[in-house]
Amino acid sequence: MEKLIKVMDQEMQAVGGQKLNLPSLCSAELWRASGRWDQMGPELFRLVDRHNHGYCLGPTHEEVVTALVASQSGLSYKQLPLRLYQVTRKFRDEPKPRFGLLRSREFYMKDMYTFDTSEEAARHTYEQVCAAYCSLFSRLGLRFVKVQAATGSIGGTTSHEFQLPADIGEDRLLLCPQGHFAANVETLNGEQTSCPTCREKLTETKGIEVGHTFYLGTKYSSVANAVFSSSENKPQLAEMGCYGLGVSRILAASIEVLSTEESIRWPSLIAPYQLCFIPPKRGSKEEEGAVLLEQVYDDLAEALPHLAGDLVLDDRTQLTIGKRLKDAKRLGYPYVVVAGKRVCEDPPVFEVWNQNADEVLFLTKEGVIELLSKVQVP
Amino acid sequence: MEKLIKVMDQEMQAVGGQKLNLPSLCSAELWRASGRWDQMGPELFRLVDRHNHGYCLGPTHEEVVTALVASQSGLSYKQLPLRLYQVTRKFRDEPKPRFGLLRSREFYMKDMYTFDTSEEAARHTYEQVCAAYCSLFSRLGLRFVKVQAATGSIGGTTSHEFQLPADIGEDRLLLCPQGHFAANVETLNGEQTSCPTCREKLTETKGIEVGHTFYLGTKYSSVANAVFSSSENKPQLAEMGCYGLGVSRILAASIEVLSTEESIRWPSLIAPYQLCFIPPKRGSKEEEGAVLLEQVYDDLAEALPHLAGDLVLDDRTQLTIGKRLKDAKRLGYPYVVVAGKRVCEDPPVFEVWNQNADEVLFLTKEGVIELLSKVQVP
Repeated sequence: MEKLIKVMDQEMQAVGGQKLNLPSLCSAELWRASGRWDQMGPELFRLVDRHNHGYCLGPTHEEVVTALVASQSGLSYKQLPLRLYQVTRKFRDEPKPRFGLLRSREFYMKDMYTFDTSEEAARHTYEQVCAAYCSLFSRLGLRFVKVQAATGSIGGTTSHEFQLPADIGEDRLLLCPQGHFAANVETLNGEQTSCPTCREKLTETKGIEVGHTFYLGTKYSSVANAVFSSSENKPQLAEMGCYGLGVSRILAASIEVLSTEESIRWPSLIAPYQLCFIPPKRGSKEEEGAVLLEQVYDDLAEALPHLAGDLVLDDRTQLTIGKRLKDAKRLGYPYVVVAGKRVCEDPPVFEVWNQNADEVLFLTKEGVIELLSKVQVP
Repeated sequence: MEKLIKVMDQEMQAVGGQKLNLPSLCSAELWRASGRWDQMGPELFRLVDRHNHGYCLGPTHEEVVTALVASQSGLSYKQLPLRLYQVTRKFRDEPKPRFGLLRSREFYMKDMYTFDTSEEAARHTYEQVCAAYCSLFSRLGLRFVKVQAATGSIGGTTSHEFQLPADIGEDRLLLCPQGHFAANVETLNGEQTSCPTCREKLTETKGIEVGHTFYLGTKYSSVANAVFSSSENKPQLAEMGCYGLGVSRILAASIEVLSTEESIRWPSLIAPYQLCFIPPKRGSKEEEGAVLLEQVYDDLAEALPHLAGDLVLDDRTQLTIGKRLKDAKRLGYPYVVVAGKRVCEDPPVFEVWNQNADEVLFLTKEGVIELLSKVQVP
């Protein structure tokens, strides 16, 4: 999760994102003003403090961030766009939490809120943040679709979801095979079977929603009076957008779409550990190979210091190599280096499992280091 | 805050800490079992979900983590000690939140929970974690005292607080000038005026509590039945400890104890940015020095890539150097490099403010890089 958050930080900061931390306890007053206190119904966790003031546990933070920006007096058009984001725990009283981290009542979300001087500027921001989301999923090696989406309780006029196609997904998507059209069926009025552009038959797939973007206009800024001084020195409402990525959900969804029956597969970039070393079984005739494998470990950590924290040595040498290799597959290391039979050759040869490519290579120490030198970590 | 968390991660992982994430919504049932549901009174934020199940917002997580460990069947003495920690938002319904981040109702805390096979082992863990806390405060350059403390609602038999001496502090401490004795006055029965060891008169000081450690024994493990199999293969209750550091509070307390009237001072290691560059005022006769300063910026970022994200260029060149230097002091950069009058010399000389040492140096580009090469970031 920390690695995924690093990738998100990179993408958000590349489009001028500034990171902050908004409170989980959101005042009922703010939510009443926007109308969402009633609209959200039982999904909102509600409580009162010792002074009997009402709060909800923020499932999202449009009200809070807009109040923060509204409180900045003297905000000038020169200071916009503002692109504020956080990675924090969010709360939603799901009627049926399920599938582990895919749908839980507490989850981590990256949410960005943007403030622009005009609808045109806000639309430009919208395109930039969507492009950052595309870049993120591409870097993770996840096949995704960006579909037209409903705006729901958040509101606004334009909205897209980023979906990972998967049978377990709870959303139904209609896609043009040529890529002209992609929509969540809940946005469509009546039945649509062919692409409005090329007339090809739409295909249906299920998807896991991992991101959602909204062009909000002035829905929240008008309630909180979030204004800036225009170039004519007149107060003007900020044009807003909001953008969410499910942090904990992306972890679970990635495993869901990438894994096989035998092995967990993480997006390589964010695998908890890149590489597992498996020395020979204690008492086997290759036992002396353990020292040679540790030499690979040491030299690799020295040659590629950015990977030093990504290396695991499975020293449970009372277990067979086969048993430990099975465990390594279940844990999802992109690479496993085994000191097998050929470790006794001169020079020693190691068995390297590239799990995500599903191939086995036989490499010398130098070959292992060369192979791993291409591995990226965030 | 992210830098401070990195330092904490280093210290906790150096003593075998494993990081996890426990829920904020803690089941009322667990808290009733430990007796704290009633004991905590109005400090606990309480709520119910849509099924009318009760929860509190975790101010601390002894119950939850102990239930987690208890659920691991087949835990062997060989797997202990377990040292589990998290850095998450905690909640406490303070009657009077005050002093910004020093006492707020939501705050970030680093909390570690340890599970050992015997009291002796748990006492050893206690010493190790306390030593890690000492190391942390030393690395931050913060003067601290470790004092005997009350166990309060957490319970257990041994407890210490880590306190930063400060007038604004809400705790009263009694200290032996020779270092034999240090206690929070709330732990003392009646008046104590001299050191029990050396008889010297105790001095009183106020302190800000920034860390708290507890030896818990089996208070929580006996309730949750958190057991391991002993070397005789018998179930045995784990001996526990818990250890907290106030993350957001340490930030505020550091500023409180280090700053002067004119300038904020952060612990150098975790300053948000290490270095601010101030180019000449637009239209001044040193204006051409801006290019030379940018050269320092570029060369520094290349020579010391770990500092690249720690450099700020204050390009508000419509403002005087004096005005921007004042702002830089208010923001707390440990170093400020100014292109002043001597930037026109050959080779150019830059004015370098070392804010924390309160000195000004005149250095060439090479001198600046040499000086900054000693700066550490986590």
